[in-house]
Amino acid sequence: MDSINFTFYSNSVSDSEIILQDQEASHASQVLRKKVGDYIHVIDGVGGLYSCQISSIQKKEINCSILHSSFYENSERLILAIAPTKNRDRLEWMIEKLVEIGVKQIILLETKNTVRTKTNLTRIEKKVLSAVKQSLRYHIPEVKEMGFKEALALEASYKWIAHCEDGEKSKQMESGTKDQLVLIGPEGDFTHEEIELAKSAGFQPLDLGEFRLRTETAAVVTAARAL
Amino acid sequence: MDSINFTFYSNSVSDSEIILQDQEASHASQVLRKKVGDYIHVIDGVGGLYSCQISSIQKKEINCSILHSSFYENSERLILAIAPTKNRDRLEWMIEKLVEIGVKQIILLETKNTVRTKTNLTRIEKKVLSAVKQSLRYHIPEVKEMGFKEALALEASYKWIAHCEDGEKSKQMESGTKDQLVLIGPEGDFTHEEIELAKSAGFQPLDLGEFRLRTETAAVVTAARAL
Repeated sequence: MDSINFTFYSNSVSDSEIILQDQEASHASQVLRKKVGDYIHVIDGVGGLYSCQISSIQKKEINCSILHSSFYENSERLILAIAPTKNRDRLEWMIEKLVEIGVKQIILLETKNTVRTKTNLTRIEKKVLSAVKQSLRYHIPEVKEMGFKEALALEASYKWIAHCEDGEKSKQMESGTKDQLVLIGPEGDFTHEEIELAKSAGFQPLDLGEFRLRTETAAVVTAARAL
Repeated sequence: MDSINFTFYSNSVSDSEIILQDQEASHASQVLRKKVGDYIHVIDGVGGLYSCQISSIQKKEINCSILHSSFYENSERLILAIAPTKNRDRLEWMIEKLVEIGVKQIILLETKNTVRTKTNLTRIEKKVLSAVKQSLRYHIPEVKEMGFKEALALEASYKWIAHCEDGEKSKQMESGTKDQLVLIGPEGDFTHEEIELAKSAGFQPLDLGEFRLRTETAAVVTAARAL
């Protein structure tokens, strides 16, 4: 059996067969030189882990027979809505760490003080998948883009806003099995109006310490505190 | 007055004067083109922040008159003893994040499963200083190298060991004003013997979640949870 260290991804899964497509297929055949008969592991991104044997190889498609499958529950509960800087390195670093530490969903938040540039969501999703494989996880956190007011309408058992204004804040995050949603502001912080809107929508101010953190660091600190 | 965003460092501080030396001096005069009469901010690494005016410039030494001084208490209580991988990028990333989130002291730990290569402590100290300046902090965390048994003899009000074996572990870290010491193992984990020795020396097992983290990530997660 192949070492579980390199895992493939596919969402084309039937009872007995998995199909690797596009980049997964070309990486398997052209970079890793996989052959018919080779054994590989494949995740479906929603908790399934499949031990497979390659049955046929085409350029953009590889067919695999499923020999054995396991299913893992998603224990992640944290939904992070972040207004990140547009520095690509910092964003990619943050995604790696969030996946490694554990997150259920990542929302890229648009706020008043967010610098407005086009987000390459496909690139970000690739980074998430790569981080999931590296961290040997079985669930791919969904990534979405959202405006601030839309984020305020999201459902979660516990809702927090990490802002830099003075005022009462809670240090303790909830532990347990219920979803937690945390809003993390941009370098220029949320506006006073956004903070008040969030509080009216049931978001509690969250204390991330006395020193101001970079947005990406605040996200990783939040994921660590939610463990 | 100069923006506080770029701060110099010196430990040559008298009542009325500060002397910038070596790299701090050459960076000030040759890179930033500071002149006699310019105003700069200097930290002493132990809580002091000095507003100064440059009085004379030599190649490797700059004399500054102190106009105003402030003193900041060190609120950091976390002593992290880590057995890191020798990947320099990961180590430098970890140091940046630890300084930003907050740490009192960093100990580079030698354990049974640590890969033994020469550590460039001077280079690491430079990285720490640079991270302190970037994070606008006033205290430079000390960096030391230490063997495992020597680390077990360190004093702290609360002592933890983050290991990957099964067993009872505490999720909650102490908050408050007393020192906490945390031992974080290498990628190969602490040996069973090391864990037992630590427990005998009063170290409690610390739970960093159900998924195994890279050593550097575990260090940053610990600092975040100690906030």
